[in-house]
Amino acid sequence: MIRRAAVLLSGGLDSATAAAWARAAGYSVGALSVDYGQRQRHELEAASRVAEHLEIADHRMVAVDLRAFGGSALTADLAVPKDRAWIGSDVPITYVPARNTILLALLTSLAEVTGATDLVIGANVQDYSGYPDCRPEFLRAFADVARLGTRAGTEGAVFTVRAPLLHLSKAGIVRLGRDLGLDHALTLSCYDPPAPFVHCGRCDACRLRRAGFQEAGVPDPSTYAG
Amino acid sequence: MIRRAAVLLSGGLDSATAAAWARAAGYSVGALSVDYGQRQRHELEAASRVAEHLEIADHRMVAVDLRAFGGSALTADLAVPKDRAWIGSDVPITYVPARNTILLALLTSLAEVTGATDLVIGANVQDYSGYPDCRPEFLRAFADVARLGTRAGTEGAVFTVRAPLLHLSKAGIVRLGRDLGLDHALTLSCYDPPAPFVHCGRCDACRLRRAGFQEAGVPDPSTYAG
Repeated sequence: MIRRAAVLLSGGLDSATAAAWARAAGYSVGALSVDYGQRQRHELEAASRVAEHLEIADHRMVAVDLRAFGGSALTADLAVPKDRAWIGSDVPITYVPARNTILLALLTSLAEVTGATDLVIGANVQDYSGYPDCRPEFLRAFADVARLGTRAGTEGAVFTVRAPLLHLSKAGIVRLGRDLGLDHALTLSCYDPPAPFVHCGRCDACRLRRAGFQEAGVPDPSTYAG
Repeated sequence: MIRRAAVLLSGGLDSATAAAWARAAGYSVGALSVDYGQRQRHELEAASRVAEHLEIADHRMVAVDLRAFGGSALTADLAVPKDRAWIGSDVPITYVPARNTILLALLTSLAEVTGATDLVIGANVQDYSGYPDCRPEFLRAFADVARLGTRAGTEGAVFTVRAPLLHLSKAGIVRLGRDLGLDHALTLSCYDPPAPFVHCGRCDACRLRRAGFQEAGVPDPSTYAG
């Protein structure tokens, strides 16, 4: 029996690695990219390149405009913080209200129409110190919602949220991607790319990415502007 | 201390009654209407009229295009079933995959930015026989997700999903609306309106609505085409 998974694919390093993991684990994979009004629209192009690279035929895009809710540097007209060390401290300004709840809800819809019961997300510990909706207990609670809120669930299917990167460091994610044959050059992490597929090198996402490659001892194919 | 609620407001009879309930219960109300590519776009205009009627100043609209997921007569190019009795039988064709999960996720985002911890939804028993994501256990599970996935939740706030219509019949909803002073003429229930603010009279939503007014003994201000 073919196991089907629905994977959130943003085009960043983490989600691309999670998608590569799902493919390697033998799932039949459907991928979902969500355009939620984020500033880095180049990320969506990266998602398409990664999906093609991983031979994921069913790749869907859904647009949802979260700018109506404001409250985040990623979606509103606030400056993306540069050269500041929020990581591991408080909830960061780049937090999108209830983002993963929304993304997983959309992923549940994809799962329902494709017959998938495994929801795959690239959440990891580097994030869940800052983002509440990356915590393991959140992911477990969401699996209950997916089971109780879907037709498949009423028919006995059990949903699982798989977060294969949850306990990996960024270096561990880089190594896992390398081991899975992921072409890191196709991914884009930057919150505020100065040019297509160029990383600014200064935002939190860039700093985590660059440090991850360095710590992993894996060649970093990214172009950094700063 | 002002209690704040975030209310899903579709413009239909149920959500309008739920919003009127929240106002009457003393909440400071923010309302969210979601354009999810449904066919009855007139519903969104109805939502605006209801929000104005109920003096809800913070009324936001979010667009999310669920047509990428297909699988429902409300969002895909399938015929809306007419004159057929699915009610209470199986999961109906008008089911949108994971719809309430998506709607509540978006509502959680509104709650987070407005400081609300009560999520109000017009789900009721007439629906949850057919729609899995209207069941009480689903709504309870979602409250856990909202608590675990938000900044407010990490700071100790407890989220509640309020479904004040859950155990009411359609007639009970009509009576509650009347008792709360809701102007029923502003609401629109029809899945497939033949003209602006005209009900087809034949789809499942119209049949439930019409029967509800009749059973309640409350004058029905709706215009029905058939």
